[in-house]
Amino acid sequence: MNNTLNEKIGMNNDFTEDEKAGIYKAIFSRRDVRSHFTTKPIDEKVLTRILNAAHHAPSVGFSQPWNFILIKEQETKKKIKESFESERIDSSKLLEGTKKSKYLSFKLEGILESPINICITYDPSKFGPFVIGRNSVPETGVYSVCCAVQNLWLAARSEGVGVGWVSILSNKILKQVLNLPEHVVPVAYLTLGYVTEFAKKPDLESAGWLPRLDLKDVVYYERWNQKENRGWITINELIKTNLDYA
Amino acid sequence: MNNTLNEKIGMNNDFTEDEKAGIYKAIFSRRDVRSHFTTKPIDEKVLTRILNAAHHAPSVGFSQPWNFILIKEQETKKKIKESFESERIDSSKLLEGTKKSKYLSFKLEGILESPINICITYDPSKFGPFVIGRNSVPETGVYSVCCAVQNLWLAARSEGVGVGWVSILSNKILKQVLNLPEHVVPVAYLTLGYVTEFAKKPDLESAGWLPRLDLKDVVYYERWNQKENRGWITINELIKTNLDYA
Repeated sequence: MNNTLNEKIGMNNDFTEDEKAGIYKAIFSRRDVRSHFTTKPIDEKVLTRILNAAHHAPSVGFSQPWNFILIKEQETKKKIKESFESERIDSSKLLEGTKKSKYLSFKLEGILESPINICITYDPSKFGPFVIGRNSVPETGVYSVCCAVQNLWLAARSEGVGVGWVSILSNKILKQVLNLPEHVVPVAYLTLGYVTEFAKKPDLESAGWLPRLDLKDVVYYERWNQKENRGWITINELIKTNLDYA
Repeated sequence: MNNTLNEKIGMNNDFTEDEKAGIYKAIFSRRDVRSHFTTKPIDEKVLTRILNAAHHAPSVGFSQPWNFILIKEQETKKKIKESFESERIDSSKLLEGTKKSKYLSFKLEGILESPINICITYDPSKFGPFVIGRNSVPETGVYSVCCAVQNLWLAARSEGVGVGWVSILSNKILKQVLNLPEHVVPVAYLTLGYVTEFAKKPDLESAGWLPRLDLKDVVYYERWNQKENRGWITINELIKTNLDYA
């Protein structure tokens, strides 16, 4: 991060229009990248910034329960790729006909092509056993790690670095290969690299696998399944109509 | 979002320095807000933008398994607050002495003071039962919802809206109060509102409860617990030294 950028990161409450645009641009143009990786190594300063962004995620009781394992050894990547292949075939057995062949035709990971893989883990023992706010819902620990993943993803997007989350993997094998202690959970296995392009839409949307839901279909008022409410008339209209920036 | 902002959100790969600064500024200055809420209602366009940002999170197999329940009815908030109080007391029983009194002195939620509460839920049945990438690690479904939470949080920060994640709650009571179906999981209960300030540091850090870890303490190379590796010398140095922008 250069000095100009440094100076801009103040704690003042107001964001300029350009800074605000940066947030929304990253959010709307972020992609789960499985192809288009280039072999160009990721600049070390860029990687440091991205990791630091992840480390500044919210965490339950400020427990910061994440670790980032940076991977570029081919041997490790190959073992992970083997696990992907095996899980992919297993999953395909749940499908039939054109759904199955379509699924098998998708490019679903870039483990070997991307210059860097990162495994982000959850360590429940960090600062434990008592962590503020984790007692009623223990899952909030792993939720914190997911927030770190999303920080990393958005920072990477702004740096022109593509990120793919490979979830077709055996966590058992991942733990063996990366030598994780029994109590540590591998949460995300990510592939990172500069890309030749960021797709205009998510791959599975372009392929016609699933449609993007409308915002109005995921918002309820006051309780589950309530699609209209007299206390929320304006927002209800806005959500239906004002989506040209989506 | 006004037109100027609209035009800026293109799909071109490069971010301007200002746009990039916006991402890092939001990430580093985002806070888990429990106090300083004002009663000023959240602008409906701002709320729509924030929700749309959340809806554009990554999701396993493009399943978009989230719903957003917007809450402002006092009666609902009061029931949630009661659950918080009860869980807070229960948790305090795990502590003793000064730790206990310190814990009980913390302000840990702004349920009633914030103008809007949002419950973000996970519906595993959406587009299911087969969701691409969710077979090997079913938890990736709920992980997607956490990414939506973080998108919402960052977008809100850039709009000057404070967000607090209340995790000291009974999910059982939350499900009853919000009328959630049995299979739906409440993932996050958030309180939103404009704030008089965003704190310079996380509250629990300022209070001396826990320290911020150094980045170097959460990064490993190639496998668990490996703090040095000849393939990662430059990044290892950068991570240790170049953190003036943190």
